Amino acid sequence: MSSNQRQYRQQAESFLKNLSGAYFPNSTREFLHGSRADIRVPYRRIHLSKSLHQPSPGIAMPDNPPLDVYDTSSVYGEPGANIDIEQGLVKLRQRWIAERQSSQERGVTQLAYARKGIITPEMEYVALRENLGREHLANPITAEFVRDEIAQGRAILPANVNHPESEPMIIGRNFLVKVNANIGNSSVSSSIEEEVEKLVWATRWGADTIMDLSTGRNIHQTREWILRNSPVPIGTVPIYQALERVNGIAEKLTWTTFKEVLLEQAEQGVDYFTIHAGVLHDYIALTSRRVTGIVSRGGSIMAKWCMAHQQENFLYQHFHEICAICAEYDVSLSLGDGLRPGSIADANDEAQFAELRTLGELTKIAWQYDVQVMIEGPGHVPMHKIKENMDEQLKHCHEAPFYTLGPLTTDIAPGYDHITSGIGAAMIGAFGCAMLCYVTPKEHLGLPNKEDVKQGLIAYKIAAHAADLAKGHPGAQARDDAMSKARFEFRWDDQFNLALDPLTARAYHDETLPQESNKTA
Amino acid sequence: MSSNQRQYRQQAESFLKNLSGAYFPNSTREFLHGSRADIRVPYRRIHLSKSLHQPSPGIAMPDNPPLDVYDTSSVYGEPGANIDIEQGLVKLRQRWIAERQSSQERGVTQLAYARKGIITPEMEYVALRENLGREHLANPITAEFVRDEIAQGRAILPANVNHPESEPMIIGRNFLVKVNANIGNSSVSSSIEEEVEKLVWATRWGADTIMDLSTGRNIHQTREWILRNSPVPIGTVPIYQALERVNGIAEKLTWTTFKEVLLEQAEQGVDYFTIHAGVLHDYIALTSRRVTGIVSRGGSIMAKWCMAHQQENFLYQHFHEICAICAEYDVSLSLGDGLRPGSIADANDEAQFAELRTLGELTKIAWQYDVQVMIEGPGHVPMHKIKENMDEQLKHCHEAPFYTLGPLTTDIAPGYDHITSGIGAAMIGAFGCAMLCYVTPKEHLGLPNKEDVKQGLIAYKIAAHAADLAKGHPGAQARDDAMSKARFEFRWDDQFNLALDPLTARAYHDETLPQESNKTA
Repeated sequence: MSSNQRQYRQQAESFLKNLSGAYFPNSTREFLHGSRADIRVPYRRIHLSKSLHQPSPGIAMPDNPPLDVYDTSSVYGEPGANIDIEQGLVKLRQRWIAERQSSQERGVTQLAYARKGIITPEMEYVALRENLGREHLANPITAEFVRDEIAQGRAILPANVNHPESEPMIIGRNFLVKVNANIGNSSVSSSIEEEVEKLVWATRWGADTIMDLSTGRNIHQTREWILRNSPVPIGTVPIYQALERVNGIAEKLTWTTFKEVLLEQAEQGVDYFTIHAGVLHDYIALTSRRVTGIVSRGGSIMAKWCMAHQQENFLYQHFHEICAICAEYDVSLSLGDGLRPGSIADANDEAQFAELRTLGELTKIAWQYDVQVMIEGPGHVPMHKIKENMDEQLKHCHEAPFYTLGPLTTDIAPGYDHITSGIGAAMIGAFGCAMLCYVTPKEHLGLPNKEDVKQGLIAYKIAAHAADLAKGHPGAQARDDAMSKARFEFRWDDQFNLALDPLTARAYHDETLPQESNKTA
Repeated sequence: MSSNQRQYRQQAESFLKNLSGAYFPNSTREFLHGSRADIRVPYRRIHLSKSLHQPSPGIAMPDNPPLDVYDTSSVYGEPGANIDIEQGLVKLRQRWIAERQSSQERGVTQLAYARKGIITPEMEYVALRENLGREHLANPITAEFVRDEIAQGRAILPANVNHPESEPMIIGRNFLVKVNANIGNSSVSSSIEEEVEKLVWATRWGADTIMDLSTGRNIHQTREWILRNSPVPIGTVPIYQALERVNGIAEKLTWTTFKEVLLEQAEQGVDYFTIHAGVLHDYIALTSRRVTGIVSRGGSIMAKWCMAHQQENFLYQHFHEICAICAEYDVSLSLGDGLRPGSIADANDEAQFAELRTLGELTKIAWQYDVQVMIEGPGHVPMHKIKENMDEQLKHCHEAPFYTLGPLTTDIAPGYDHITSGIGAAMIGAFGCAMLCYVTPKEHLGLPNKEDVKQGLIAYKIAAHAADLAKGHPGAQARDDAMSKARFEFRWDDQFNLALDPLTARAYHDETLPQESNKTA
């Protein structure tokens, strides 16, 4: 172990040991309770101070109700929680899964149950979580609505039966917009402490799912550490591990190798797979006149394979078998956009849309197997071409949820692509995109560190929330309104505590004198 | 002078002394030439390296053409320029102004000339600047088009006859989207070095205009330092200085005091005035049920005055006289939105739109005096309500240019309001907003420092550029395309040099190994 490696490991150990579980000020952990005792949905309650103005003499200053916020940090955000990363998280869904298995019915996916009219505990959990106790508002989310959206294919609830540690969440355009964070081991060797630290960090700043894009020799072990300690669904790109097995030579990939990887990852508990089955042989030529060719790593691998063998993409050829594996474990499919544009110049071209139409065909096949599906989208798209992406996706993919990277709305600001893409992400979220894959300030430049991950997540929580407001999600405006009231009443502590990043808000304020900072509103 | 003050002054002195004039790597200063020798439009040329792939053996690697970018930094970005801040900038427009004055014609505003069919040197300058030598592209901007847009009131060219140092620029929705940066002295006493440092810093990062929001005893002197050294138009909010004259007591404001301030500032060379003449007495009651009341400082001052005197806003009552003063100096009017919403909850309400309709009436009055006009807009607006702002503004303000602060698309992220508002700014820019007033990360929290100003400007240059792409401005995509080609060919230095912030892009890249950073595209 090099001294650098020892240092990273020690930092991670220290981070985990010092997890007080109460990172956010004036916050408590609370739970919503479902129809059975083991349905307990954690969330964070932000306590506010009284208003500063007395309505009239002798009348007490009015209280301000606490503000409840969606929280994906599980025990890592729970004061006093007992955390043992060698042991892993409590398997909260284990009993639900076991009960269903004992019923001897075929079909273990949430889609299968939804189609049969069965509301699973996961669905009930999701409904509670989306409402956060605001059922008094217009159009609250019901468990039956969750079931129906899943049954229609408009939403997915990624929940591998072998990842019982995960807290149910839903991805669909009639729910809160979700955010994914990518993580991956950055060195040949990492430690369980480092991997769990990344998890904790990403969920602290609001990641709804995490994609593990690790490479290298210890890919299986790394993923095991992540899965056993992750309260959020974990996605992977299995072709990356398959490529490791053939020493990085794309031409040597085979269906047999790929299938082994799929089975291994499904068995381990991965909740969704990115599969680049839409990169058809004939579409590759459509990219030849592009400014930036094929920029998706998975897309490049499959294109190389197709060209070398002059054969059709084996993921497309074996798509039925892929679905059969996913169906057995309830792994959701995230149909990858291997031909996504890598520049403004290439946005919305025929290569991209030809692949999208194929993803629509594949969606129907997956649904035959009761496999949940979402569709991945670009990438780099100027603002005036964003809506077409959403429209085409809805049209050709039968309303399966859309999951996009950004999109970046300009290419001129490397170092600030969390902002160039946050603009596009907010817009496509408002148009109906269900989940936004974050982009960090290091995009196109290097590997993100912890601060970059935080900056990326905050930009994307802003984008997702702005989209929730625009879509009129019930209760979404509660946090804005609480902040605005605190601002109008100059309750500074409440403003900090209600912020996405309370510590930064307070630090910025304290840099200048309070009386000076009152100038702008 | 306190030790802090001495330190700031010394830092500013040192900053100015070390202005090499070549801050951006691999860049040179070039000029476009007009029909007369004294029309010379500076811009920055970014030189690129050859492509790394030989087309075939024996054939030289192809050159990549340089990329020309709009540049507002004047001599502060010119290598070897002689800078004497006590002397001020060269008065580049002095001769043009003098020539026109000697012609004895009445009406000195660019609008007056435009209506008479006269293309001023300023208009020709603007046409060259907007095209940046890309006249071969479809629909280049012609000087006649500039004149016509000004004549129609769809664009303004803020250019006080007493600010001959300014380089002509245009604000209108058929031109490049512009960005304004606010600056203001942060202490009771500042120095000429500190004020000029702010100017240089803001134009380095792309400010198209600067609003001087200084307060305090030395307001006149501070503004003098700024005007004599500013290559970009300077805007002010004259009511702030008027308020200083009555010791901060809004009720004591009078038309006489205000008029004195207007004349003083017009004489000094201020290019545009924010005037809150639309805050009518009867509209104030419309804000009573708001979550955040009146958040505009100018709006609050005028509302207080109206309520105290139970009289109509004296700026509205004396609007014809205001116009007469502006006409004499060619001061443009920026009709302030004193009732802009200060929260998502208050967006697009009747108070806001009632004032907007009054601003439309005032626009017509200003045009009677040949005074150029733009209209200020909010503020805080959720994404789904942004377009209505643009539509209503176009409808009621007769297509006069729109100039908005943000808008912020959510209230939950103080510390990151350059991002919450960058999203809204990009959108309203794409819808036709002509100028975007930047928001820094310190908004709502404190006074911005240099780093905050830079962060705010970069977020807003991104927003403006994304909007230019969406509007299909001729040549806007050239920089994106050059970046994308450099990215595809792994020309790292070119990628850094083409970036809005080359130093940050390079630093981020160098944090991790180059071979590792090739992973994402």
